[in-house]
Amino acid sequence: MLKDFVKIDVPDDKELKTKLKEERDHLAALQMKLKDAALPVMVIFEGWNAAGKGVIIGKVIRNIDPRFFKVATMDREPSEEEKRYPFLYRFIKEIPEAGKFRFFDTCWMEEVVDEVLAGKLDEDAYKKRVHSINIIERQLCDNGYLVIKFFFHISKKEQKKRLEVLQSDKDTKWRVDEEDLLQNKNYESCLNIFERYLEDTNESRTPWYIIDASDKKMAELQVLQFLNQGIDVALANQKMNVPILQNTFPMDKPQKLSEISLEDKSISEDEYDEELRRLQKELRELGNKVYRKKIPVIIAYEGWDAAGKGGNIKRITEALDPRDYVVEPIASPEPHEKARHYLWRFWTRLPKTGHITIFDRTWYGRVMVERLEGFCSENDWQRAYNEINEFEKELVDWGAVIIKFWVQIDKDTQLERFTDRQNTPEKQWKITDEDWRNRDKWDLYETAIDEMISKTSTKFAPWYVLESVDKKYARIKALKIVIEQLKRKL
Amino acid sequence: MLKDFVKIDVPDDKELKTKLKEERDHLAALQMKLKDAALPVMVIFEGWNAAGKGVIIGKVIRNIDPRFFKVATMDREPSEEEKRYPFLYRFIKEIPEAGKFRFFDTCWMEEVVDEVLAGKLDEDAYKKRVHSINIIERQLCDNGYLVIKFFFHISKKEQKKRLEVLQSDKDTKWRVDEEDLLQNKNYESCLNIFERYLEDTNESRTPWYIIDASDKKMAELQVLQFLNQGIDVALANQKMNVPILQNTFPMDKPQKLSEISLEDKSISEDEYDEELRRLQKELRELGNKVYRKKIPVIIAYEGWDAAGKGGNIKRITEALDPRDYVVEPIASPEPHEKARHYLWRFWTRLPKTGHITIFDRTWYGRVMVERLEGFCSENDWQRAYNEINEFEKELVDWGAVIIKFWVQIDKDTQLERFTDRQNTPEKQWKITDEDWRNRDKWDLYETAIDEMISKTSTKFAPWYVLESVDKKYARIKALKIVIEQLKRKL
Repeated sequence: MLKDFVKIDVPDDKELKTKLKEERDHLAALQMKLKDAALPVMVIFEGWNAAGKGVIIGKVIRNIDPRFFKVATMDREPSEEEKRYPFLYRFIKEIPEAGKFRFFDTCWMEEVVDEVLAGKLDEDAYKKRVHSINIIERQLCDNGYLVIKFFFHISKKEQKKRLEVLQSDKDTKWRVDEEDLLQNKNYESCLNIFERYLEDTNESRTPWYIIDASDKKMAELQVLQFLNQGIDVALANQKMNVPILQNTFPMDKPQKLSEISLEDKSISEDEYDEELRRLQKELRELGNKVYRKKIPVIIAYEGWDAAGKGGNIKRITEALDPRDYVVEPIASPEPHEKARHYLWRFWTRLPKTGHITIFDRTWYGRVMVERLEGFCSENDWQRAYNEINEFEKELVDWGAVIIKFWVQIDKDTQLERFTDRQNTPEKQWKITDEDWRNRDKWDLYETAIDEMISKTSTKFAPWYVLESVDKKYARIKALKIVIEQLKRKL
Repeated sequence: MLKDFVKIDVPDDKELKTKLKEERDHLAALQMKLKDAALPVMVIFEGWNAAGKGVIIGKVIRNIDPRFFKVATMDREPSEEEKRYPFLYRFIKEIPEAGKFRFFDTCWMEEVVDEVLAGKLDEDAYKKRVHSINIIERQLCDNGYLVIKFFFHISKKEQKKRLEVLQSDKDTKWRVDEEDLLQNKNYESCLNIFERYLEDTNESRTPWYIIDASDKKMAELQVLQFLNQGIDVALANQKMNVPILQNTFPMDKPQKLSEISLEDKSISEDEYDEELRRLQKELRELGNKVYRKKIPVIIAYEGWDAAGKGGNIKRITEALDPRDYVVEPIASPEPHEKARHYLWRFWTRLPKTGHITIFDRTWYGRVMVERLEGFCSENDWQRAYNEINEFEKELVDWGAVIIKFWVQIDKDTQLERFTDRQNTPEKQWKITDEDWRNRDKWDLYETAIDEMISKTSTKFAPWYVLESVDKKYARIKALKIVIEQLKRKL
């Protein structure tokens, strides 16, 4: 792509000015349409050092009201803190909300090509990175994001000239660092790496636009043209459906809920006390090891209302050092969460390495409550199984332990517990009208849950069912599974 | 993809029956919706030999009225005739019309992997093939086609068993050939080649669906499920806009029409006669060489009404052997042409090797009359520049010579000629009301033509302007250019 790229003709000053004005006005007009259509726009600027990315971002944003955009400056090494998350994490944190722009001053490309250049990524690791990036770009696009990708291109000679100009002035000298000079020196090998990356990530819905950046005004014009055109196309495509990809991950073969026996899944008081003590002690030690070995752990709880999730989680956390874990209770998304990719609020709640996050309800809301209440379209939730598997695969590949619990009770048990809550003043806060409404939809939920479990029980992140008519039984089982899975990883 | 693929669970007979009936009925119901929505559906079956592709196609079509589908049996070597066209040609010929199904019993994948296996494609040639396939699949998808791709997967053992069963019966013995046995023997190396191809062509809008074909009923069910789901999604996406890809082909820098001087572009009668004779003689000889060297030649004429295209073409054809060339006058598309990708009627009119096709008007109608008369959407014609460049690149890579002429006159000259036609009884058939209407839109056309020429003057297929106020001058210039370009290639 870069190698065949031909320099753009620069029109005469007058024509350039007219065209620039046209595009600037067009962008200014688009920002309100964007807002009305709730379209999130992610604009990624990559390219050669000293190609003028920052300058052009500065010019583009002048046409947009400050309420409608932010600039994410990612052109830096990840911090020590950020290194304790999946490599995509620091970028995903920054994705825009619906109706707004986010301009990325470099993004995941820069990190990957830098690592390749530094010899930190071998062929396989590079391919994995590219695979992850293609997945996240596709997911963003499928979930209604406009992702526009610019590569700022200048020649070796032009880059050298610019670096020399910067260096020759004591006020700008500081802006040229070792890496810039190295890139210019090794221009050809960088070019090969860039070229390959661009080809590997040039998808029909998230294509690359190469910007001839040898002339600043022309660079601005090209960026504005591609950006405006992209927004025009995206605005015409609201509520587009997306092909449902086949799930090609290796799967377990879980039982249906109706096939799971809840009888005889109980434990005596004495045995429970003894087991609880023993298992919590073991978990405490494993928790310490996990911390020292910097393993990230994700424990996800889903289950029927009143199935006993809270008490179950408590028996896990009791065994853990409070500094090492966090429980994330998941309710309906806040407005700023709803305005982003539905996995964003989980991405941003991930544990860092050595830590444990316990989700009390999870991203599976997409294929349960959001599906049944019509909070997303059919195409959205049908697509979500694969998107969720991809999300969990990314985390497992990062090194995380993922344990997913379905806390199971029968309908009668739920009724008993609901009634008990209703009749016990100190438990009344635990029961709401919504719980009763959900209960009315038990059968619909059961169908959805069976589908969910069958489509997301991957070999790398299977579901575990906790039979919780006897809550104590369920707690002991949960502890055992967590211990087993941590041991496996350690 | 194949390597991680896990066998599908077969439900019990009753459940399978119910599900099959559901999907069959759904497909039967979809065919009318398809027709109403004018959605063309291309279903590609690829996979291991003896995996049962043919059987399943047979079962799927039972649910569809014969008026709405055809089966394209491509699982054979291209004929000697077909080998004289670009490798995509025989497949593109078969693409479905709007509102209809076309089932491909193998398609371009089979041809490519067979050639790789036979050692006929080296790494570079393989990559080129894959690139061409990705382009055509994207173009089909962008132009409203639903392209569903199935790969029928069976294990080495299962394949061996099936081949043995076929061989053991004298009625089916003939169906097993050397290639089948060889594929089974070299199962692992075939697997690697298949795997790579699937990964190289697995695009988000035209993804692969792997069918576990070890059980026939399950294979049918999977195919029906993916097919129905795909149609449902596509029906929801009518008139979707598509991101306009950047044109990254190397470009010439042509003049605007208004910058082209028409003065002094004339020739004396005597000089004309002499030159014509000399050049036609030279072209005649070159025509023979082209024929013997099996070079395909495409000469494309566009120009203002009454610019003199017809007479110009005549001076070319006079020099050629009537058996070696054909002139294709291009009018509005016929219904069966309109119902397909707009380039289809040009793909199917390509010359075979050693032959010359002269197009009197061309695929550039998309960005002239179709644009200005609103026969296609803005997104359609904006996308077309790149699609056309891709099309011409494919032909040039195949080995074709492409010469594109724009026959240029000024507005006054056109008026003179129109008036002359009007007033001369034997020329009156040449002038219609439409010509006058087009003339009223001269300025709009001029803008569109300037854009067209600037966006499609690639290095490999540039436009040549023939100044045709003096028609004789234009004819001599055309002959010279054709001669020069043929010589270059020979």
